[in-house]
Amino acid sequence: MDPMERSKKAVAEHAANFVKEGMVVGLGSGSTANWMIKRLGERVQEGLNIKGIPSSFKSERLAAECGIPLTDFSSVDKIDIAIDGADEVDSDLQLLKGGGGSLVREKIVDGEAEQLIIIVDETKIVTRLGEFPLPIEVTPFGWELTAENISNLGGKPKLRHLDGEIFVTNNDNYILDCKFPGIQKPAELHASLKLLTGVVETGLFINMADQIIIAKQDGIEILTK
Amino acid sequence: MDPMERSKKAVAEHAANFVKEGMVVGLGSGSTANWMIKRLGERVQEGLNIKGIPSSFKSERLAAECGIPLTDFSSVDKIDIAIDGADEVDSDLQLLKGGGGSLVREKIVDGEAEQLIIIVDETKIVTRLGEFPLPIEVTPFGWELTAENISNLGGKPKLRHLDGEIFVTNNDNYILDCKFPGIQKPAELHASLKLLTGVVETGLFINMADQIIIAKQDGIEILTK
Repeated sequence: MDPMERSKKAVAEHAANFVKEGMVVGLGSGSTANWMIKRLGERVQEGLNIKGIPSSFKSERLAAECGIPLTDFSSVDKIDIAIDGADEVDSDLQLLKGGGGSLVREKIVDGEAEQLIIIVDETKIVTRLGEFPLPIEVTPFGWELTAENISNLGGKPKLRHLDGEIFVTNNDNYILDCKFPGIQKPAELHASLKLLTGVVETGLFINMADQIIIAKQDGIEILTK
Repeated sequence: MDPMERSKKAVAEHAANFVKEGMVVGLGSGSTANWMIKRLGERVQEGLNIKGIPSSFKSERLAAECGIPLTDFSSVDKIDIAIDGADEVDSDLQLLKGGGGSLVREKIVDGEAEQLIIIVDETKIVTRLGEFPLPIEVTPFGWELTAENISNLGGKPKLRHLDGEIFVTNNDNYILDCKFPGIQKPAELHASLKLLTGVVETGLFINMADQIIIAKQDGIEILTK
């Protein structure tokens, strides 16, 4: 295993240790989060009693393979902790997420968690959000107009495709990947975008993360609020 | 025809007269809007050249039956006029809509129109919005949590059903019909609701209507901004 992969695994195991007996756990996505799910699966085999709420189809499949009992919001009304990845993290612990296309589901799970721990490798840490295009989930009907309205707020929207077809989210919506030239005020930009008719959700996760655990070439770094 | 039906028809014809040669027209829904679509269909048969963008499946079907040529947002980038119904209208011309379940589509069409004319019968005119439960379109995933978050803003959400099944919108979402006890500040309530994760759109149409044409037992009344 190369040093970075070893660091990701160490980060994931560190995060998995926050999970305690009886907790409801939001299970996120991403290469580091995958290690975390595998580690939690091991702890479940060792006798840990938890319930998982996956934030994507991918994490749902992996969690099931690892033997983690799953639940949903019709059975539980709170999430004790969520552990998830991110596409970008700034120094205020604001996140840009949604490259994987499971935006709404991730935001509902992460937002509902009493504690949100983000695990990423060091390439995701940025001074200012916006190098990565901001994913915005929009309704298919009228998406062209919604794109125009996003342009008016300074973004350059590009309709996401996959294998030559328009990409469709878990919620049967489209994703506009929007290049914003350096996001100075993530909270305000999120609100302006979310208030547009046709916008279902944005990939800006504002004031949600409690702790960022970073996998570096030479070890682990932790950022807290 | 009873007097009210005659008034609705008169209102619809009055509104249809705002449509001029070459216009792109948003075609709304409701019993009065249906008369308007029929009247526009007659005008098209008489030689009027327009294109319609229906705001619901129902109005799409009726418009097609009436021979109105239809278009969509991939072909046009503006709507000259939209004529639509509403479930409630207050004295500031703010609207509560979405009883029919075509919320997002209606809001995109009505919001994009350079001019929005609302045609209703007098039973829809209220002092304060909120007698009619406010329809809020939400993503199916996590709808229980979204409902809880709406309750925290003072609403009483009820998941809409149809024929014993959960009602699903054009966009594959759910509708929560939310009783708010007298909506004092529609613009602020809309923003608070729309900013919730999981909320796709609300039925509050704020600062959108330019003119309300009201069918009364004894004739027509017009409200303008």
